[in-house]
Amino acid sequence: MIELAAANSNVTRLRRLGQRRAAREAEGAIVVEAVKAIAEALRARRVESIFVRGGNHPTAESVEALLGPVDPAIPIYVLDPKTFDGAASTVTPQAAMAVVSWRPATVAEIAFDQGPVIVLDGVADPGNVGTIVRVADAAGAGAVFAGPRNADVTAPKVVRSAAGSLLRVPVVTSLTTEAAIAELQAQSVRCIGAVARGGVAYDAFDWSLPVALVLGSEAHGIDDAIGATLDGEVFVDMVPGAESLNVAVACAVLAFEIRRQRARGSAA
Amino acid sequence: MIELAAANSNVTRLRRLGQRRAAREAEGAIVVEAVKAIAEALRARRVESIFVRGGNHPTAESVEALLGPVDPAIPIYVLDPKTFDGAASTVTPQAAMAVVSWRPATVAEIAFDQGPVIVLDGVADPGNVGTIVRVADAAGAGAVFAGPRNADVTAPKVVRSAAGSLLRVPVVTSLTTEAAIAELQAQSVRCIGAVARGGVAYDAFDWSLPVALVLGSEAHGIDDAIGATLDGEVFVDMVPGAESLNVAVACAVLAFEIRRQRARGSAA
Repeated sequence: MIELAAANSNVTRLRRLGQRRAAREAEGAIVVEAVKAIAEALRARRVESIFVRGGNHPTAESVEALLGPVDPAIPIYVLDPKTFDGAASTVTPQAAMAVVSWRPATVAEIAFDQGPVIVLDGVADPGNVGTIVRVADAAGAGAVFAGPRNADVTAPKVVRSAAGSLLRVPVVTSLTTEAAIAELQAQSVRCIGAVARGGVAYDAFDWSLPVALVLGSEAHGIDDAIGATLDGEVFVDMVPGAESLNVAVACAVLAFEIRRQRARGSAA
Repeated sequence: MIELAAANSNVTRLRRLGQRRAAREAEGAIVVEAVKAIAEALRARRVESIFVRGGNHPTAESVEALLGPVDPAIPIYVLDPKTFDGAASTVTPQAAMAVVSWRPATVAEIAFDQGPVIVLDGVADPGNVGTIVRVADAAGAGAVFAGPRNADVTAPKVVRSAAGSLLRVPVVTSLTTEAAIAELQAQSVRCIGAVARGGVAYDAFDWSLPVALVLGSEAHGIDDAIGATLDGEVFVDMVPGAESLNVAVACAVLAFEIRRQRARGSAA
């Protein structure tokens, strides 16, 4: 179904979901603005509605050329370029946006015996949170815990940085870091903090048992009170005097070392 | 020396360096906008002039409280907030900016027998180029080659993402990817491409000899003609069906595996 103009209520919803976290939570939906990620969401049957930037008289065929097969039950609205651009979160939007169903995960849905779980403790930059979700996807992490002190995982910039990974990685948003760690420890998951100095060299650590990687804020690392509850600490060996690693980069180095060790069957 | 207002020529230079790559190249200087990175540049004796955001009547003492000791020979200019904000590259600038001497490196300055060299082939996003320079610093890379087809390494967003690392890592900007690879191979450095599929698993590769890691563009990977000149290809083992890795994240996983292997003395 393709409509040459969206009813005001549809555009209002698109804007509301793009701008307000409370709306995304209440309605269980996010706005996806990258064509490639929309195509993935379509394959995963998670798209509720599609908005196309008008101007070249889009047809159902041209939309499918852009996004791949679209279930005829999914409404496609054509917006005039000004309205479309006004609803987008970037100054140079792509040719389509989609409302995609998305809900945070619950602890009961997570497999702890496979990849590590990633727990974020105050990661404020949306690009970092998105990149971490993408790393979690690629490295086979079981879930990301991104509680209230982190950048909102449904924010447009996070969705953009995470690419399609937000549709594959369970993300728990309701628990504080303290509550997440308590919950994980109750499930016999060891909670290991990533620290700039001190702790065990990350590649000498034995990652064979279920673990959660705890990553602190860009500016201050892991909160001291949280640090006291951890089951261990690891560091990535850097050149002396070097700038510290970006938190998403540190997450990648650690998560892929865990994956490497588990595939090879041993540390170091 | 602290001046309560900068002469027009000083502000003009600050703006020119912030906005024009040709000016940065011709004058051998970049604009650093992060307080922490300015403090590092001061310790490295690379600061030519400092610009402080006025409003609270800055003094030499308040500037040193912000940035650490400042050589009295370095001029400190106080700009009215509107002029300061207009010269800054972000909408929420920090309290100071500095003009810092910076020149691209030449091949003759690079040590090939230590960390790997990173060669970028079409990395267009300034944040990725900056993060790669920061990774190169932390992982002990010998140099980054960022030729004309990549984001300009002196651009404000790259400088911001690289934090202080741009002052420690030699960056060669004059050579195309083709010329960089030919030059490296002439120095007996093996050029190994990072690919999404095919090649050798990155942790099974023997990284003990001098190597250059070749990283392709975010959208298209390594150019085919470049690929044909490489000495080998490696891939990072990801979960099947996962989103591909961000190029800076892939760089980190590879560079730290090289560092890990060299410290431990063997592959896998």
